[in-house]
Amino acid sequence: MDLNADLGEGFGRWTLGDDVALLDIVTSANVACGFHAGDPATMHRICVAAVRRGVAIGAQVGYRDLAGFGRRRIDYDLDELRDDVIYQIGALEGFCRVAGGRVAYVKPHGALYNTAAVDEGQASAVVAAVRAYDAALPVLCQPGSVLARLATAAGLTVVGEGFADRGYRADGTLVPRSARGALIHDPDAVVARAVRMAVEGVVETVAGEVVPCPVESICVHGDTPGAVDLAGRVREGLLAAGRSVRPRPSPAGSGADERGRRG
Amino acid sequence: MDLNADLGEGFGRWTLGDDVALLDIVTSANVACGFHAGDPATMHRICVAAVRRGVAIGAQVGYRDLAGFGRRRIDYDLDELRDDVIYQIGALEGFCRVAGGRVAYVKPHGALYNTAAVDEGQASAVVAAVRAYDAALPVLCQPGSVLARLATAAGLTVVGEGFADRGYRADGTLVPRSARGALIHDPDAVVARAVRMAVEGVVETVAGEVVPCPVESICVHGDTPGAVDLAGRVREGLLAAGRSVRPRPSPAGSGADERGRRG
Amino acid sequence: MDLNADLGEGFGRWTLGDDVALLDIVTSANVACGFHAGDPATMHRICVAAVRRGVAIGAQVGYRDLAGFGRRRIDYDLDELRDDVIYQIGALEGFCRVAGGRVAYVKPHGALYNTAAVDEGQASAVVAAVRAYDAALPVLCQPGSVLARLATAAGLTVVGEGFADRGYRADGTLVPRSARGALIHDPDAVVARAVRMAVEGVVETVAGEVVPCPVESICVHGDTPGAVDLAGRVREGLLAAGRSVRPRPSPAGSGADERGRRG
Amino acid sequence: MDLNADLGEGFGRWTLGDDVALLDIVTSANVACGFHAGDPATMHRICVAAVRRGVAIGAQVGYRDLAGFGRRRIDYDLDELRDDVIYQIGALEGFCRVAGGRVAYVKPHGALYNTAAVDEGQASAVVAAVRAYDAALPVLCQPGSVLARLATAAGLTVVGEGFADRGYRADGTLVPRSARGALIHDPDAVVARAVRMAVEGVVETVAGEVVPCPVESICVHGDTPGAVDLAGRVREGLLAAGRSVRPRPSPAGSGADERGRRG
Repeated sequence: MDLNADLGEGFGRWTLGDDVALLDIVTSANVACGFHAGDPATMHRICVAAVRRGVAIGAQVGYRDLAGFGRRRIDYDLDELRDDVIYQIGALEGFCRVAGGRVAYVKPHGALYNTAAVDEGQASAVVAAVRAYDAALPVLCQPGSVLARLATAAGLTVVGEGFADRGYRADGTLVPRSARGALIHDPDAVVARAVRMAVEGVVETVAGEVVPCPVESICVHGDTPGAVDLAGRVREGLLAAGRSVRPRPSPAGSGADERGRRG
Repeated sequence: MDLNADLGEGFGRWTLGDDVALLDIVTSANVACGFHAGDPATMHRICVAAVRRGVAIGAQVGYRDLAGFGRRRIDYDLDELRDDVIYQIGALEGFCRVAGGRVAYVKPHGALYNTAAVDEGQASAVVAAVRAYDAALPVLCQPGSVLARLATAAGLTVVGEGFADRGYRADGTLVPRSARGALIHDPDAVVARAVRMAVEGVVETVAGEVVPCPVESICVHGDTPGAVDLAGRVREGLLAAGRSVRPRPSPAGSGADERGRRG
Repeated sequence: MDLNADLGEGFGRWTLGDDVALLDIVTSANVACGFHAGDPATMHRICVAAVRRGVAIGAQVGYRDLAGFGRRRIDYDLDELRDDVIYQIGALEGFCRVAGGRVAYVKPHGALYNTAAVDEGQASAVVAAVRAYDAALPVLCQPGSVLARLATAAGLTVVGEGFADRGYRADGTLVPRSARGALIHDPDAVVARAVRMAVEGVVETVAGEVVPCPVESICVHGDTPGAVDLAGRVREGLLAAGRSVRPRPSPAGSGADERGRRG
Repeated sequence: MDLNADLGEGFGRWTLGDDVALLDIVTSANVACGFHAGDPATMHRICVAAVRRGVAIGAQVGYRDLAGFGRRRIDYDLDELRDDVIYQIGALEGFCRVAGGRVAYVKPHGALYNTAAVDEGQASAVVAAVRAYDAALPVLCQPGSVLARLATAAGLTVVGEGFADRGYRADGTLVPRSARGALIHDPDAVVARAVRMAVEGVVETVAGEVVPCPVESICVHGDTPGAVDLAGRVREGLLAAGRSVRPRPSPAGSGADERGRRG
């Protein structure tokens, strides 16, 4: 099982979360690429630290909206959205090169994540960006989302992602944050849900049903001290349950090696 | 002889110059990378159009200063400046990949160009960025500048650049824009100076001396209709003088091919 | 009749339209306030030039989206939208003070204009901003829009705006740009429609019906040389039809005088 | 004695320091205006909270440099710098109006503070902005600085500011941060120095001399929990020494009242 978290979500003078602590817990780092958060110096530092630890580096691509932290839906022209995504992947790839690594996957952020999960236009723009940039690059997103469906149809690899601290509905989608049961607050319950996703591939819904939850990566958070502790406990729980915790292997035939190689 | 010009220096709704006309004249396109100008959609379009025409693509890296168009000196922390340069090169490389090309060189823009020509700190930050990203990537700058000296000392390739429409001093530096003789306004004189740089490797100074001007690339402009015409006349003048007009070959052993290859 | 146009829609190095030519034609200048376009130096210059000519100054408030020119709908938190609008009005007021004038009205720009015309949430955020800032400040918008309705209900003054170069539907709304008949291309027709709006208070729809069009201001454009010419012809047409062309008077009891006074 | 601190220096998702705690300690709030930090929603909240507590509101104006937090010197065109300052004052004034208050003074931030302390050009741009906006508005800066001198010469009111936690040189300037003795770390010493500034109007230099330090406001910090505690101790120390702690009165004949009045 892979553990992913958002990293590098500060900007200049401002920081968010404890990137260093998270890098010792997760196996995949979703690095903010400068549009919703993330500055070049932070991207550089995180890429170096991630490569040193064997943590996979993902491009956490977002809307161009620093003021809104990428959390406000924007009705982009779809070609412009595609190009904003390519730009961000390329920028992160530069730091991966410098650190001796490569971009290993793409994960949309915030409102782009949510919109691409349900909107064919924006999902197709993300898919078009990844295909044009490197069709061997996996997309990290929710199983069953529009993005997952279109990415698969386009021949991209989809890595299904689960949220151990979020409530699920019977169709595998998340309970909206505004609704009852959206968040699981009990740390023991969060760890237990993560283990169950990893071992049994299922999750219990807010209504008490057990439904399939076919995920290869579990998302943890790090924006509070409590969140970092919980992320560590999820990792330990998975290990105690006999699951390995490591990044997904780079897909065979990927352009990743060539992208990363130096002359 | 190579002819280079700044391209893609609009931003979103705003455009500057006639990129399409210039792409039919120059052999190297200095593409703005989003910090002083340049948006992802424009970068994408220009990379596609440049690759189609065999025009070399250079990363025109600038300060993060859209409001000032990168023309105001900023006293960067040097590590941050290095990282801002890496970020911009990487972002442009993303579009080069998509277009089937690669970043062929790096040219600082505006106040960064001027500052790196005289300031060891900022020059070394640019050099550090290029070395870290790809030590085979040439730097386009003025012969005799601090940047040229430090880049050469660091083992980078320097491509000397000349300005046929600017006044020169005896030491090979440009007459400041605020001083008399800074600009050559007569188109015939500009063409003649370009030809002399290309054929004889010299330039006549404001004082009337003839001094060496060892350049491999001549910079032309495109931000007015007159400028585009003049750029075309410079090209024709060079051809009429028996010089070929083409981009510099990619250096042997460069990482360029690997950077550009797809999986 | 008042004639309004968007002005100051460049940013830094980039310009858009001929602000000086327009200032000699219109009676109200919708000045971009820095979020979708507009930089402080341009705002300063336009305020000085407008006050000198007796042209009324309006705050053309937009989304925070330079890259998208404020033309992409953004799903703002409504309190944040209200505060972004207050910020922009205040910033423009600073230059009005300096120029010896005052902000005379507020007009939303681009996607905010279109969204506030139909969306109660965003319309109410604009209304809340104007009420909080100065309840005597009129809002320039389309008659019959949600914004017009909510502004009126909140006790604000609404100034109805017409578009002589746009097709209308029977309910008084505009034909969408993507549909047939959205734009009137014939200059004579545009002038005739403006005159009819001013004299008879009606407009002919795409279907040929004549419907009420109770406007106090007609919007003209200036982003092309042809547009400036046409704006001038609209002005002359109104004068030839015996209409005065002048800004609306500042409402009695307005805070405008106090806002503008110096110590 | 007045106590001032920088407030509202977050941006969107990012916060910095404990604004609420500081508002209960200081008598003057230097509110970031959006160029180096500060977003409209935060500005709004702080203005409301400051007016409620009787805390004076100052425009903390900075370079347009979110990524550098206004700490990198930028070689502005001076007219553009003046206009950037006017813009920021105006934007803050909008929220003061809404909160029932007014901008009470102007304080440059970061690299603009430091540059205007020694550079005639940038100092004169700040002076020009304040004069044009409201010549009754005081400027908060270091006694003896170029800004203090030019502001006084232009007829502006200068409020001298002292730093109880910084080392001083014999000429009244601060020990640079890079030099030994730049920072006073002992809280008791900081409180004692603040009291001495307030009671005796002197400060002891790094060399042990006692020199005049004619300040009307002492700057405290709030970006760490320790800083907030220390700010509170400075306040208590001043009160225990028999000094009142309150904002400066608004100058007679100021335009402040008119700026703030609603219609």
